[in-house]
Amino acid sequence: MSGFGFEVRSPEEAIEGIKHTVLVMSGKGGVGKTFITVNLASVLALKGYSVGIMDADIHGPSIPKMLGISGSRMYQGEIGITPVVGPLGMRVVSIDFLLPTSDTPVIWRGPLKSRMIKEFINNIEWGELDFLFVDLPPGTGDEPLSVVQELRKPSGAVIVTIPTEVSQIVVRKAVVFARQVKVPILGIVENMSGFTCPDTGKTYMIFGAGGGEAIAKAMNVPFLGSIPLDPRIAEASDKGVPFVVMWPDTPATKAITNIALKIAKKLGENAD
Amino acid sequence: MSGFGFEVRSPEEAIEGIKHTVLVMSGKGGVGKTFITVNLASVLALKGYSVGIMDADIHGPSIPKMLGISGSRMYQGEIGITPVVGPLGMRVVSIDFLLPTSDTPVIWRGPLKSRMIKEFINNIEWGELDFLFVDLPPGTGDEPLSVVQELRKPSGAVIVTIPTEVSQIVVRKAVVFARQVKVPILGIVENMSGFTCPDTGKTYMIFGAGGGEAIAKAMNVPFLGSIPLDPRIAEASDKGVPFVVMWPDTPATKAITNIALKIAKKLGENAD
Repeated sequence: MSGFGFEVRSPEEAIEGIKHTVLVMSGKGGVGKTFITVNLASVLALKGYSVGIMDADIHGPSIPKMLGISGSRMYQGEIGITPVVGPLGMRVVSIDFLLPTSDTPVIWRGPLKSRMIKEFINNIEWGELDFLFVDLPPGTGDEPLSVVQELRKPSGAVIVTIPTEVSQIVVRKAVVFARQVKVPILGIVENMSGFTCPDTGKTYMIFGAGGGEAIAKAMNVPFLGSIPLDPRIAEASDKGVPFVVMWPDTPATKAITNIALKIAKKLGENAD
Repeated sequence: MSGFGFEVRSPEEAIEGIKHTVLVMSGKGGVGKTFITVNLASVLALKGYSVGIMDADIHGPSIPKMLGISGSRMYQGEIGITPVVGPLGMRVVSIDFLLPTSDTPVIWRGPLKSRMIKEFINNIEWGELDFLFVDLPPGTGDEPLSVVQELRKPSGAVIVTIPTEVSQIVVRKAVVFARQVKVPILGIVENMSGFTCPDTGKTYMIFGAGGGEAIAKAMNVPFLGSIPLDPRIAEASDKGVPFVVMWPDTPATKAITNIALKIAKKLGENAD
């Protein structure tokens, strides 16, 4: 972990320039948290906000790959570590920037992961940001606990699910978690909601239907919207270009833009 | 954790009746590890083998829901805890059987999770089993490390991916992890490989194409096969019936059956 000093500032000092901190979480893996983090952040960066992304997934950091900045390095600045600047001027921090190769697994138990998260918050020169999005790994263990503890009062959490019932059960745990640690729930996003066949125009509910709204209703939290399946999402992610930048006129981009603006408004910004 | 005593047997005694232990892992969440675990186990149970499943996902236990036995309870027997008996006589252990409700999040840091895994191996009355499948959570942290340490020499690992490049990066970490902890890699399974539209017969590569084979080749590990997307998979999983039981004559069932038989053969069984 070269470059990580031990003179850690107080968390208050480290994040005093950040206006809103938004956790993107799920409880369940593979529902598209990273895709949604990258694209919510991109929408707000396109609107002129200054945006940062913290990749809190220590074992499976995918933010850099999705932004096309994998292989970049973070350096020690005067006060702390300088984030990597990605597309749209977004400031990005990820353990990927500290690994020798992208194949290297981070075989760490909890205490070391918590230490890393602490460094990511207290020892990074975040500067002035309107929004800091935090991409959390699945589960309700060390990483989300440490993020919540170090950020003190995150502005809110966006909870991501896919429509299947099996996912919903795990995602409901995330809702209860957010309540227990007193993070306001901004709402639920349903990802992978149906595939519209480009040849017939017919929509197939590959992962079932309506799960996100069902949880939102059952758990009494706002429903922010659904994002459809689109093969171009995997393509853009693999190319390292935010989907909303690469495919601005698509149903998925419209859905993500609406969700991002809802979040900004809930946090008191006059976005449109 | 009522019912969990502290007279822990030696790991050797606890698992001496288990012939083969197979870890299903990925590094990445949401690639279908649980679906694959349940259905590989079901194929071998249908062939007459005695099979157990250990759900090592402490934060997001989904095995019970997928087997239709959520809400069951485990009890203290004479020697240790008795697993729940699920479909096809499979013996199942999951933290879900110890939680007051399915919404309850397990907000635990690493050391407690490791303790639980240790109990799941040493203090369970597994009895005689041909195969024990272990469904690991995403990542290369406490849970997989503890499973590997407690099982001493697992027979092998099945590594699951989906076709996208972003997934591949994380899954490659799982391959390196398995090598570092000296677990033989049985091979790679690619899940969600294309959706064949039932109306046109045309296949859409919703998550890209060929990722599993590409990793297998690049990392020099066997490729076990691909499983196509099928809306009936989510449906069967939500209903709690193993897909291979509910839909025996489908391309997905054929693919899973082939993979299960390859695994059994690699472990020295005369399965067909």
